Amino acid sequence: MNAPFSELERDAVYRVIHERRDVRSTFLPTEIPDATLLRLLDAAHSAPSVGLMQPWEFIVVRDRSIRSNIRDLFLKANQAAAETYSGEKRAVYDSLKLEGILDTPLNLCVTCNPDSSRGSGLGRRTMPETALYSTVCAVQNFWLAARAENIGVGWVSILSPPDLRAILDIPEHIIPVAYLCVGYVSEFLPSPELESKGWEQRVPVASLIHQDRYSDASGTTR
Amino acid sequence: MNAPFSELERDAVYRVIHERRDVRSTFLPTEIPDATLLRLLDAAHSAPSVGLMQPWEFIVVRDRSIRSNIRDLFLKANQAAAETYSGEKRAVYDSLKLEGILDTPLNLCVTCNPDSSRGSGLGRRTMPETALYSTVCAVQNFWLAARAENIGVGWVSILSPPDLRAILDIPEHIIPVAYLCVGYVSEFLPSPELESKGWEQRVPVASLIHQDRYSDASGTTR
Repeated sequence: MNAPFSELERDAVYRVIHERRDVRSTFLPTEIPDATLLRLLDAAHSAPSVGLMQPWEFIVVRDRSIRSNIRDLFLKANQAAAETYSGEKRAVYDSLKLEGILDTPLNLCVTCNPDSSRGSGLGRRTMPETALYSTVCAVQNFWLAARAENIGVGWVSILSPPDLRAILDIPEHIIPVAYLCVGYVSEFLPSPELESKGWEQRVPVASLIHQDRYSDASGTTR
Repeated sequence: MNAPFSELERDAVYRVIHERRDVRSTFLPTEIPDATLLRLLDAAHSAPSVGLMQPWEFIVVRDRSIRSNIRDLFLKANQAAAETYSGEKRAVYDSLKLEGILDTPLNLCVTCNPDSSRGSGLGRRTMPETALYSTVCAVQNFWLAARAENIGVGWVSILSPPDLRAILDIPEHIIPVAYLCVGYVSEFLPSPELESKGWEQRVPVASLIHQDRYSDASGTTR
């Protein structure tokens, strides 16, 4: 437990963080072995959670007719989204592939029970939103572990939550946090597709760092 | 980019995921070198974000008088929280150390600008909460990279967000998502303190897995 991380181990951690991608275009239909999927879900379940409440649950969606219904939701929401752009921005938007719902062997819906009694409310009195945040930490663990298994993950947020809830029989008190497409890939792209296609650029990290107060905006770590 | 992760690299990724801890009791005051902190912030900045909006910002809080004011906030909120428990649960609660605000060389407040024009709204029409979720992915990246640098992180949620906002001069449209204590540690504990002190137990991951629909509850991956 206490042995320090070797340089090689540390490099592997930074590698997975920097080479993780939101995958949409390069998925392969290859099945994911159950043992591999379980390792990924166990990595998700090792996330931090407020009060150790473990508010997350995982719906593994393999059924193609269910996924086809979810893809229809995406198409509807994406059409409405596309119509909010015009001109060159609309042309770029239309060129983007934003989901791999049916290109992958499985999808994963990660849900949160924000009112679970697990954890006895510890840490949730002043910031109840930390139940949701814990669930997102589980998603990021899953995503990174997947990359280390050479499996791609793409997060689809262009879905109406009430419609998604209806298709997946998710009860009212459970919140669908993330809908992920999960599969092996032909390649991991060197940079985010939204960057290479000119939708948005990465900003320098130094421009996001403040000292002691938000209003400081010094732009360096000292 | 496309070379598969070696077994050793993959093991390192799982190691960091499983050995990451929410640290409160074992912090050391040792300074964190600027270059190391920048690597951690760059890891956070490599998180996925909806539409590549990069909604996160980082306030590095070293000033002890500011941190002392934040610790006072914690003490106030923690007292109110403690009073919601009674009997044995209260005794366990009182035995927990839930922050390391002044035990560490620095704290980090990770904020989110949910209305940033960056990303041009892509992916936020149906699920605007993904701006916040992106910021939490950055927090988890920071936490894992820190563990690989043998640096501990503890997330303090027992703070009133309006009071925190006032102390750190955070404007109304910016959301403080996470307040982290960051420092080297004397040891990383083998299991979460909330588990070893009997506050809560981890549940088996299989009990959290559903097949195709939430209502299925089959409890296995097939």
